[in-house]
Amino acid sequence: MRTKRNSQDLVPLGDIRAAAERIRGTVVRTPLIPDLDLSETVGGEIRLKCESLQKAGAFKARGACNFLAQLSPDELERGVITYSSGNHAQAVAFAAGLAGARAVVVMPTTAPKVKSDGARRLGARVEFAGTTSEHRRARAEEIAAAEGQVMVPPFDHRWIIAGAGTVALEVTEDWPEVDTLLVPIGGGGQVAGCAAALRRLKPQSTIIGVEPAGAPTMRQALDAGTPTTLERIDTIADGLAPTRAGDLTFAHAAALLDDVVLVEDDDIRRAAAHLITRRKLVVEYSGAATVAALLSGRVPAAGRKVCAVLSGGNLDTSQLGEILDTASAPAR
Amino acid sequence: MRTKRNSQDLVPLGDIRAAAERIRGTVVRTPLIPDLDLSETVGGEIRLKCESLQKAGAFKARGACNFLAQLSPDELERGVITYSSGNHAQAVAFAAGLAGARAVVVMPTTAPKVKSDGARRLGARVEFAGTTSEHRRARAEEIAAAEGQVMVPPFDHRWIIAGAGTVALEVTEDWPEVDTLLVPIGGGGQVAGCAAALRRLKPQSTIIGVEPAGAPTMRQALDAGTPTTLERIDTIADGLAPTRAGDLTFAHAAALLDDVVLVEDDDIRRAAAHLITRRKLVVEYSGAATVAALLSGRVPAAGRKVCAVLSGGNLDTSQLGEILDTASAPAR
Repeated sequence: MRTKRNSQDLVPLGDIRAAAERIRGTVVRTPLIPDLDLSETVGGEIRLKCESLQKAGAFKARGACNFLAQLSPDELERGVITYSSGNHAQAVAFAAGLAGARAVVVMPTTAPKVKSDGARRLGARVEFAGTTSEHRRARAEEIAAAEGQVMVPPFDHRWIIAGAGTVALEVTEDWPEVDTLLVPIGGGGQVAGCAAALRRLKPQSTIIGVEPAGAPTMRQALDAGTPTTLERIDTIADGLAPTRAGDLTFAHAAALLDDVVLVEDDDIRRAAAHLITRRKLVVEYSGAATVAALLSGRVPAAGRKVCAVLSGGNLDTSQLGEILDTASAPAR
Repeated sequence: MRTKRNSQDLVPLGDIRAAAERIRGTVVRTPLIPDLDLSETVGGEIRLKCESLQKAGAFKARGACNFLAQLSPDELERGVITYSSGNHAQAVAFAAGLAGARAVVVMPTTAPKVKSDGARRLGARVEFAGTTSEHRRARAEEIAAAEGQVMVPPFDHRWIIAGAGTVALEVTEDWPEVDTLLVPIGGGGQVAGCAAALRRLKPQSTIIGVEPAGAPTMRQALDAGTPTTLERIDTIADGLAPTRAGDLTFAHAAALLDDVVLVEDDDIRRAAAHLITRRKLVVEYSGAATVAALLSGRVPAAGRKVCAVLSGGNLDTSQLGEILDTASAPAR
């Protein structure tokens, strides 16, 4: 399904390697952990890239740190601002704290408390605006126009994509034999960066993005040939729910991905229950989407060496009860 | 508090290195993960050695694999048997499966379902006997006498101690600057092995064992100068509740540890809540004891580089609700 595209649009491998150098020691080199139960279930070898254990609880710290490390002293003095469902907000708060910059983050009124509390604890000023990515983006731009902060986009920027791509660099270093990479898609920053790295490092590998069926932003963009705005979002995976893919992330997805598959919320619930009760890793629903794609059979894994990226762990504790109910319910 | 003792009783570093070679690729090299929140709280640098992510969910796989790897074909043909509160049972089931041997495990009638189910899933025949370590040991010896299996002791054996010691080898390889190691104590196998490794590799390091106040087996043995049998055990940490320390593990503790501290169940609950809700790692209560020692201030950590071993992750999901209640309760 890959389309030909002018490759100069795409983030080069060198930028991702440079990002890795820039953020080394600032972010965690997260572990890649085998999942024996899942491997047995799907008949392949499955390892989990645990960005849930990343600083600020998600892969987003990579892009935010790579971005802030390239700002000038003057820009840092102005402070930074972003809009985010929550994980990018915490990441920018974290990176700003390290860089000695003030941070404002605009989150939806429906943001999980664990994420808004997290951003505050990391020192950010938290503002709330609406429920969609468009609402919060507009509010952030309004504040930045009035107060002068530097905007740190949540996904559609080369520095953010390059930072996210360091996930795939680490995966190939730790597991050179990996042949398939599954990455969740929200705005598409992580899948763009990971694909930009892995496609160059291992051209024959299979790279698949995973979206909730209730928020098929990239799937719809690929089908339409251009990013379009979804009228309705309906998923428990709050981190995978922007209404529109980025232009740059779309370009990467179109040029570099083998496929984008959709998973149902019920599959995401079951995947989160598996990871928490069996694999001993707390993940948020968005972070469980790749495992949902495997458990539901949406991505066949027999005989393959598959890395599933667990993108984040910032689960509201109130959701743990729901996940336990899923775990104790009889399998379908 | 260390006592002089004939060092020939103790497991030498070479045996631990040999165990590491023997079990390489069979067990997981578990990640060592920084805990920024905890580090900030206690004013030191805290990293967590995640044996909760080990195969069969606990450090026990190391000793069991090191033991079975040294059995003869005839012994493997006879099969193996053990007695355990649960984690060692699962580890023996796991190791036996790899070695192609049958396994019988005797567990208490009160064993968490996650552990008895786990042992069965790994192919073991599960028998239940009484509630204390003495009860299940007697039953296992009875079965072995009748059926001829090889006994795999849960902790008081040089091969088991050497296997457990590989945890400390990995910690020092991954973090050469570590100056303090905290290890939970049940029967004492893990603390004996880790101390046997670390005391030789870094003679000036501080090595501290952690026990529940309701099961102070090693603390009482050290105070008495010899292992004694506790009349009453009262703790939520089911993996740290043998009634008597081993003779060999006691010898290691007496010769090699700087201290054994006691933690209350409430501190263990709070530590488990911290690890699950903030650090995104599912641990069982026994596995949270070392973090309880830090959070409660029982082990001062200011200015130190502390590795806390999270010994296991086999939490019954029914306990997660209780832990969430702890997390949402106001701090004392």
